[in-house]
Amino acid sequence: MMLINGEVVDQLAATDRGLHYGDGLFETIAVTDGQPRLWSQHMARLSEGCRALGIPMVDCERLQHEATSLVKGAPRGVLKIIITRGSGGRGYRVPECIQATRLLALHPWPDYPASHYEQGVTLRMCKTRLGINPALAGIKHLNRLEQVLARNEWGSREADEGVMLDPHGNVIEGTMSNLFIIEEERLITPNLTQCGINGIMRENVLHLAAQHQISTRIETLSVERLKMASACFVTNSIIGLWPVRQLDDITYQQNKIVQALIQTLSEQHLITMAS
Amino acid sequence: MMLINGEVVDQLAATDRGLHYGDGLFETIAVTDGQPRLWSQHMARLSEGCRALGIPMVDCERLQHEATSLVKGAPRGVLKIIITRGSGGRGYRVPECIQATRLLALHPWPDYPASHYEQGVTLRMCKTRLGINPALAGIKHLNRLEQVLARNEWGSREADEGVMLDPHGNVIEGTMSNLFIIEEERLITPNLTQCGINGIMRENVLHLAAQHQISTRIETLSVERLKMASACFVTNSIIGLWPVRQLDDITYQQNKIVQALIQTLSEQHLITMAS
Repeated sequence: MMLINGEVVDQLAATDRGLHYGDGLFETIAVTDGQPRLWSQHMARLSEGCRALGIPMVDCERLQHEATSLVKGAPRGVLKIIITRGSGGRGYRVPECIQATRLLALHPWPDYPASHYEQGVTLRMCKTRLGINPALAGIKHLNRLEQVLARNEWGSREADEGVMLDPHGNVIEGTMSNLFIIEEERLITPNLTQCGINGIMRENVLHLAAQHQISTRIETLSVERLKMASACFVTNSIIGLWPVRQLDDITYQQNKIVQALIQTLSEQHLITMAS
Repeated sequence: MMLINGEVVDQLAATDRGLHYGDGLFETIAVTDGQPRLWSQHMARLSEGCRALGIPMVDCERLQHEATSLVKGAPRGVLKIIITRGSGGRGYRVPECIQATRLLALHPWPDYPASHYEQGVTLRMCKTRLGINPALAGIKHLNRLEQVLARNEWGSREADEGVMLDPHGNVIEGTMSNLFIIEEERLITPNLTQCGINGIMRENVLHLAAQHQISTRIETLSVERLKMASACFVTNSIIGLWPVRQLDDITYQQNKIVQALIQTLSEQHLITMAS
């Protein structure tokens, strides 16, 4: 089921700049009990992305109205919202009059096993690296070839997620998630000012940790520190938080802080295990 | 006029990975006298791009057949070809069965003034930089937000083209063109192994120079060298070659080698000035 500019259609103008240049943004939102979760946080990031790209921010009330009608009655699902700069403009130059395109689509909930939360997942290091671009860092734009190439380095049975580095070899994130380590009872997640996506669940986990008097740091993270960490986990809006059991030949132990975060996220319905 | 997968339509499945991730490639081809120019070179680059992204190469004969029918009778125009990985796949993971999308569109010839070839164009330095990614360097993929941001740094009356640097501050290319300098009668163009698009006209100019016993070098190019160069010019498949008259506060003199290259490209019908 899909809504494009408010209409139930499944096709888009082939002149759309989203297709031609990846000139747009997206949000991937968990839907539970017929409601999109963390709506205002997703809208804040979308708004920040629009500002960064110079796309007029869409009317959030209308977007919420459309989202609500689309996900109504869905016990679980994934709502994807795409905002593009719309059609037109010769070449890269942005047209003077922008009519942004908004696309909302409801997808089935992915079938990740519930055991991922108890036993943890396996990661692997990706060869594909993230390019550096401060003007695009943090926002969830439509230029995602690096993630596509990285995700295609392995088959689904080999690992659950891949770790991506920047050109200097620093750890940034997973292909579809943000990454945290625990080091001396401190929560550390990489700095995303040069590349990477500023995840909504990452922000939530940072807030949550602060509420629980867990010390947090956002900083440069080397592969060596990742490998030496007491624990590691990945987050995104759909999975919530997955503890990491293994990264290539490194095994991580279960960790109390990670268990407590999972417990809290479950209580807040931000982790919804397959029934 | 547009052909998508062989049909005269102007809409595309909204599930296409070209829209969702910029998961595809494009070519921009000059059309003169009802013929796409430099077809085999464009197909070679498209094929190389498909290989790099793991997209099955489209049938070039069919593509040529479709292109020929689309541009038939057009005295001049711009043929844009987009190849995407098609629809499907949950998230970044590529679906097992790929049905690439092919889109061909004929656009009007741009109205660049003929004086650009005689008097030269003005360039400006862009603040937006190109990210480094050897896996994507050279190919003409659909992730073009860097060019969109760079091109929007100035209004059309302020300059004709912008110069883009890599994160180290080295000169790479224009927003829509490749860049060359002349230094001690040698032709120098930046190395594109880390970022940038390997232009068809760039390759042609390198070949042409070699045929004319002009020494050529592909190497790292600093802003200082660009500013100290005897001459500078930019190339792409549509414009052919534009000499550069000015870059911010630097003025370049007319140059015999550049004039000779323009002369030869005109004789080969690779420069077609507005009549």
